[in-house]
Amino acid sequence: MDKKTFRFTSTSVNYFFESGISHLKEVVDAKNAIILTDENVFAAHTKKFKNWNTIVLKPGEEYKIQGTVDSVIEQLIEMGADRQTTLIGIGGGVITDLAGYIASIYMRGISFGFIPTTLLSLVDASIGGKNGIDVGVYKNLVGAIKQPAFILQDLQFLNTLPEAEWQNGFAEIIKHACIKDAPMFRQLESHDLNFYIKNKREASSLIRRNVLIKTKVVMQDEFEKGDRKLLNFGHTLGHALENQYELSHGQSISIGMTYASELSRMLIGFKNAEKVPKVLEQYGLPTYALYDKDKVINVLKMDKKKEKDAINFILLEKIGKAVIEKIAIDQLYSTL
Amino acid sequence: MDKKTFRFTSTSVNYFFESGISHLKEVVDAKNAIILTDENVFAAHTKKFKNWNTIVLKPGEEYKIQGTVDSVIEQLIEMGADRQTTLIGIGGGVITDLAGYIASIYMRGISFGFIPTTLLSLVDASIGGKNGIDVGVYKNLVGAIKQPAFILQDLQFLNTLPEAEWQNGFAEIIKHACIKDAPMFRQLESHDLNFYIKNKREASSLIRRNVLIKTKVVMQDEFEKGDRKLLNFGHTLGHALENQYELSHGQSISIGMTYASELSRMLIGFKNAEKVPKVLEQYGLPTYALYDKDKVINVLKMDKKKEKDAINFILLEKIGKAVIEKIAIDQLYSTL
Ligand SMILES: NC(=O)c1ccc[n+]([C@@H]2O[C@H](COP(=O)([O-])OP(=O)(O)OC[C@H]3O[C@@H](n4cnc5c(N)ncnc54)[C@H](O)[C@@H]3O)[C@@H](O)[C@H]2O)c1
Ligand SMILES: NC(=O)c1ccc[n+]([C@@H]2O[C@H](COP(=O)([O-])OP(=O)(O)OC[C@H]3O[C@@H](n4cnc5c(N)ncnc54)[C@H](O)[C@@H]3O)[C@@H](O)[C@H]2O)c1
Ligand SMILES: [Zn+2]
Ligand SMILES: [Zn+2]
Repeated sequence: MDKKTFRFTSTSVNYFFESGISHLKEVVDAKNAIILTDENVFAAHTKKFKNWNTIVLKPGEEYKIQGTVDSVIEQLIEMGADRQTTLIGIGGGVITDLAGYIASIYMRGISFGFIPTTLLSLVDASIGGKNGIDVGVYKNLVGAIKQPAFILQDLQFLNTLPEAEWQNGFAEIIKHACIKDAPMFRQLESHDLNFYIKNKREASSLIRRNVLIKTKVVMQDEFEKGDRKLLNFGHTLGHALENQYELSHGQSISIGMTYASELSRMLIGFKNAEKVPKVLEQYGLPTYALYDKDKVINVLKMDKKKEKDAINFILLEKIGKAVIEKIAIDQLYSTL
Repeated sequence: MDKKTFRFTSTSVNYFFESGISHLKEVVDAKNAIILTDENVFAAHTKKFKNWNTIVLKPGEEYKIQGTVDSVIEQLIEMGADRQTTLIGIGGGVITDLAGYIASIYMRGISFGFIPTTLLSLVDASIGGKNGIDVGVYKNLVGAIKQPAFILQDLQFLNTLPEAEWQNGFAEIIKHACIKDAPMFRQLESHDLNFYIKNKREASSLIRRNVLIKTKVVMQDEFEKGDRKLLNFGHTLGHALENQYELSHGQSISIGMTYASELSRMLIGFKNAEKVPKVLEQYGLPTYALYDKDKVINVLKMDKKKEKDAINFILLEKIGKAVIEKIAIDQLYSTL
């Protein structure tokens, strides 16, 4: 196991890179552990869950809601979960968000860890301690910020990951490149989705590079007072689209990043606006899309990043360098 | 306003002693504030809420549940609450626990403050940052630990407090005396409930003394690794009784303290066991009570303070000095 420990404001998190779920028993005591996963992950990897107490949820964003939290808490009580219990989320971002949130509030906080099984959760959702659930159309409206005790990576899970989920993950990877890592952007430009799906060694090193990018940003600004906001590149508009249309998170932010790049060109003279959609397309992601401006603006007004009548928007100065700009909602409306 | 700032692990809390709700507007911007209160408090003090956005809940412990959280969150969304909003709980412990919990999870945490209006919430529930809700028979099973930004005390609220609620508050005051303050125990022995209800100046100084006792304990051990556990004196058995019988929190822990004092006598030679029920009775609280041992033991097994088959029980070495003892559930059963 390749273990690294990262220090956050109030706690340390152990990362186990290129590890395997078989090592999980060295990290937690199986008698005091309960796994949370979803039906897809469980069905595709049933053997890996042998000898572990497991709660299996229905898959999908539509279950990232309070009703699921209620039912998991009921099961935790029945299973005798107490302050010595560690809750382990094994799945995509829906599962890690749910597991982190439930562990944050059960008995005012029990220990938890993640084994992310989607590309998106490996490079993004499992990292940084944000968790939460959706309330109606509002994504992640309720949640907490609390770091897991550990993140264990077992890339074998990726063998069963559908192509659409690879695309979702690449949306966040391209985001990291746009805001923080120009060399990685060029590397992504020179390859495509299939290259990484087929080339496990390249995928593995790309994943690690992205894990470190996000970890570094979060370590420097855990409570999102500054730099962590840059991770919202493409997300402001993205979230609004995700609520209104049948788009995945990756697809939504891909469109969001395309428009944010355009806005960057118009408002702060970003020179490579066309490169962003180009690379997104290489990874199977949608870029320009028709949408109902009024609907979207209405949701934007409720966005968590809203401060009264203006929105903090993340723009690109150049590839690899993002900035935060306050944009009035009216101005945004006329520019869109 | 008599302002004191106390420093906790991750944040500072401003206490405004012997203040008045009229000063609230100097502490928060009314435009960005939403008050949470209950029907009893609102009905008895309607004028005080003038010009404040207010959500009024049904009173009572039975509403300290997820259903109430859901409905408050819906109202917060409708009222446009965002990250700039401060949620202010004005009420007893049910309201401060709910307000603290909701503010801890809404948008992953917004600012909040309290104006405690019961004796119990003044000296106990509003202090220390624990919050939460009940799940079925399990009290405070779900919650968080997060400090309020401020606690403002307006003792005028006490003018309408029913006598039974004074008794509840005194249960926690006597608890503080038992575990931390022998001189205060003697002071309590020399007076009774009526003395303090009638004598506002004495009540006020007693309240402040208790606020400082609890604050000091929490500051030294915010996450309950050690000394803060002492505040659970009487609560282990108390909570089990509270779940099973129609007893208030104060009544339950009063019985709990009586039995814990007896246990202290039997197990660690506590000499003044009889003094505890005596002073509890002076403040209108029940002491010895019949109860169904098996039922209570079953609930104890699920108690948050349980570590597998033993329970951390708080015992008294002497008046003013408490200790934590691990007692096996079997031993407890035969002793009770
Ligand atoms: N907390 C954060 O910081 C953060 C960051 C980004 C995204 N998120 C959240 O993450 C969620 C999206 O995550 P996601 O894209 O991983 O979604 P997801 O958890 O829904 O997973 C996507 C799909 O893949 C399936 N799946 C997962 N692993 C698999 C595997 N190894 N083999 C086969 N199928 C598998 C799942 O069952 C699901 O159907 C959103 O709710 C988003 O809000 C959170
Ligand atoms: N968070 C903590 O650290 C902590 C500590 C102790 C207790 N608690 C919690 O506190 C709760 C008990 O608190 P409580 O005893 O204040 O209960 P409460 O909030 O239910 O108040 C008791 C009753 O008094 C009424 N009331 C409140 N203020 C009044 C006023 N000024 N005039 C007239 N009526 C008034 C209320 O409407 C209610 O009917 C429990 O849920 C307990 O778990 C929390
Ligand atoms: Zn994202
Ligand atoms: Zn109490």
